[in-house]
Amino acid sequence: MNEDELELGLRFAPQFNDQGLIPCITVDDRDGDVLMFAWMNREALQRTLETGRATYFSRSRQTLWVKGESSGRWQEVRRLLTDCDQDVIQLRVVPQEEGSCHRGYRSCFYRAVSEEDPQQLEFVESGPVFDPDEVYSAQKQKSK
Amino acid sequence: MNEDELELGLRFAPQFNDQGLIPCITVDDRDGDVLMFAWMNREALQRTLETGRATYFSRSRQTLWVKGESSGRWQEVRRLLTDCDQDVIQLRVVPQEEGSCHRGYRSCFYRAVSEEDPQQLEFVESGPVFDPDEVYSAQKQKSK
Repeated sequence: MNEDELELGLRFAPQFNDQGLIPCITVDDRDGDVLMFAWMNREALQRTLETGRATYFSRSRQTLWVKGESSGRWQEVRRLLTDCDQDVIQLRVVPQEEGSCHRGYRSCFYRAVSEEDPQQLEFVESGPVFDPDEVYSAQKQKSK
Repeated sequence: MNEDELELGLRFAPQFNDQGLIPCITVDDRDGDVLMFAWMNREALQRTLETGRATYFSRSRQTLWVKGESSGRWQEVRRLLTDCDQDVIQLRVVPQEEGSCHRGYRSCFYRAVSEEDPQQLEFVESGPVFDPDEVYSAQKQKSK
């Protein structure tokens, strides 16, 4: 597949990096807000397409990671896009319940660099939408 | 800096990977559309903050890359966010002129996986907003 075919063609040919991974930007399909950033391997991408639920690859745990398997906060896929050279995925989802971040915030991007002092951050979300301690410990209880 | 400080604190401490890079999701601040995905090193991030113009690190050329230096299509920074564990940047910009993709499209994400056949793509943008051949060759002429 040459550059023109890759960049302007109609064949989906995701380009995984040398670790077999492709970056994924997950966006709320309702308002376009970026919710999170994660990685997929070929299997995660395939499962995402097959099941319609966002599935990633956890680099720290080296396993497939169905978003929501611990928190119950699944992400239903509405559309999957790729970029010009097909080495990035953009996943447009509707979360079954708000709160895509493990810290309980709606989006992982809940802080911005301060305009006054670029070494400081300020919160741009008013607060968490769920209590991570409660959600993740409840899950641990259940799985015992 | 411990995990709580990194994830809930107010100190900006971007986490670069073992190649000294951090992924950057660039979003159109006017409508939230994802325009492109690129990488920054520490210097690119610093210049972006200092100049207010998106500056990336080109992995293929191994150099700083001021977006728009070839095409004239600068990206003016409106806000710079980071994610929970500060290892991803989200840059909210207003492009000086439409067309953030080197292929002439408004966004690099101009194709989506087809719902009928997941091996196929379909275009979601109606067409390029500029002619790359014209823009990049004009630039080459100028720099001769």
